[in-house]
Amino acid sequence: MRKRPIILGIVGDSAAGKTTITSGLVKLLGPDRVTHVCTDDYHKYDRRERAEIGITALHPDCNYLDVMELHLERLHYGQPILKPVYDHSTGTLVRPEYVQPKEFVIVEGLLGFSSPIMRQFYDVKVYLNPPEDLRTVWKIKRDVAKRGYTPEQVLAEMEKRESDSAAFIRPQRDHADIVVQFYPPANVPVEEAGPTLNARLTLRPTIPHPDLTYLCEDGSKSPGVRLELGRDGSRPVDILEIDGSVSPENARRLEDVIWQHLPDLSPIQGDQFGDYLDRSEMRHSDPLAITQLLLTYHLLRQYSGVADLPFARPVAALSRVSQTAAPVVGR
Amino acid sequence: MRKRPIILGIVGDSAAGKTTITSGLVKLLGPDRVTHVCTDDYHKYDRRERAEIGITALHPDCNYLDVMELHLERLHYGQPILKPVYDHSTGTLVRPEYVQPKEFVIVEGLLGFSSPIMRQFYDVKVYLNPPEDLRTVWKIKRDVAKRGYTPEQVLAEMEKRESDSAAFIRPQRDHADIVVQFYPPANVPVEEAGPTLNARLTLRPTIPHPDLTYLCEDGSKSPGVRLELGRDGSRPVDILEIDGSVSPENARRLEDVIWQHLPDLSPIQGDQFGDYLDRSEMRHSDPLAITQLLLTYHLLRQYSGVADLPFARPVAALSRVSQTAAPVVGR
Repeated sequence: MRKRPIILGIVGDSAAGKTTITSGLVKLLGPDRVTHVCTDDYHKYDRRERAEIGITALHPDCNYLDVMELHLERLHYGQPILKPVYDHSTGTLVRPEYVQPKEFVIVEGLLGFSSPIMRQFYDVKVYLNPPEDLRTVWKIKRDVAKRGYTPEQVLAEMEKRESDSAAFIRPQRDHADIVVQFYPPANVPVEEAGPTLNARLTLRPTIPHPDLTYLCEDGSKSPGVRLELGRDGSRPVDILEIDGSVSPENARRLEDVIWQHLPDLSPIQGDQFGDYLDRSEMRHSDPLAITQLLLTYHLLRQYSGVADLPFARPVAALSRVSQTAAPVVGR
Repeated sequence: MRKRPIILGIVGDSAAGKTTITSGLVKLLGPDRVTHVCTDDYHKYDRRERAEIGITALHPDCNYLDVMELHLERLHYGQPILKPVYDHSTGTLVRPEYVQPKEFVIVEGLLGFSSPIMRQFYDVKVYLNPPEDLRTVWKIKRDVAKRGYTPEQVLAEMEKRESDSAAFIRPQRDHADIVVQFYPPANVPVEEAGPTLNARLTLRPTIPHPDLTYLCEDGSKSPGVRLELGRDGSRPVDILEIDGSVSPENARRLEDVIWQHLPDLSPIQGDQFGDYLDRSEMRHSDPLAITQLLLTYHLLRQYSGVADLPFARPVAALSRVSQTAAPVVGR
């Protein structure tokens, strides 16, 4: 009997690091086990039309959110979709492609958590939340290198998008199981932070996280890695901090602790993830590697059924999408 | 409360007259009430790829039939689809379009009745079945005028497609509620038959047809129009014959009898349907007009709920499409 696919949602503003996170996950899980879907493909208008209408790609009205809902439902049930395709290099909508979901589906984009119907079909929801000055550096780097813009054009575009970011993108943070924030250490200029970036993972108790309390017992034993109770809004959360300066040994120890929760799964090569592209050069970041490993833990755990879900997920009322089924949750 | 759309399926081989039938229906019902979907849009491969692979557009493997099934389900429930688009003029697959079904949906194409799941979502199913020599004349006319082929190329293409026509297209005739056959009168060469073509409508008792038994009472009173009991395979059917030579008065009388079953509906201008294009010239055919009127009768009747459905349609088991709903049948 075939299992349904496990769906990971990665949402964040433009250039928040979605593709970087995803590429490590694909390596960890294996490309033959992962289907990658980008919600940018669901744009209603191409680049020229958006300019004519005066709408940004971030606005819900610029996207077929209803089709996205239906397609998420289909993927959740392991069924194929005929996915629209937006070509970023030309800014046009082109021939759709037939997508048959594999064991894991990574859905990555701007508006993936924007409706309750969409949200109910994810097994794990991640929101990427870099400080705006770091995101600006990332966006300029990428759009100049890959999409042929000047830095000034990128800044102008970001300013034009700011009100939509505030209205439609950032509120989705509230729906994530895990909020990931990379940020530069104090006194390091944001442009040069690269491999020194720290990661702060806000772990909401909406999914069962691995037991990392060893980190709390004696902080001096694991410099560069901390787990602390905190509040996110009014809700209690765990906050996992991984410094960019963490020693390889301490990073490895945390990876091992995460990994020991999945004893049945084949070992994974540690040098295959945690990499990112910086001016066409591959670099490694331990905070990035640990973030990817933790997400992989959640995906494999859901898929293998190693543990029961301690938190029942709400089963939604009849979906507008199919008038029928609530998603299959737990197992 | 909004009603669900009524879906008419029109299936037939290439150049069997699908578009000609449809265009009169759109006029009869009003363009603002009709959504038109062509299943050619669900081709998996574009023209170049089909040539490379050596597959015809008629083969099920050349079409996303599963996506077609899902989209039919969506349309049945009044929900929008993001429909793929095949551009016949260039033979390429292009940007999909968002289609919100109106009151009536006409789904026209080669393989519309090829699976049980598809078939359950139509309210009325029509198969067009001209004799092959007439279809050859029609196909040459169209493909030379509109698609830039030579007559020899069209004949070669038809020969290449013949085995797929026999295997996949013609068996769909069995699933139609109405089989429409235009054919030339004896002694009229098929190339010149045009406005003299007779129509033979095989009316299966799978949907309730209007009472036309007046035609049986005294055949001499309505020359050019006949209703006879017959067998189609082993099943009893009504066969309605309309000669191309029928007098305008007798054609009008039959139209009135059909129309009197729908007294509440606004009168329709008789000169707005029954037209067809012959070498860029519009011509009129009474058999065509009556065929279109009868189909309109079925669509309006289903939509208005004027009569109850005397025949319960089979409610399918759980659909593979959504694992959920059987279609809404009857009212």
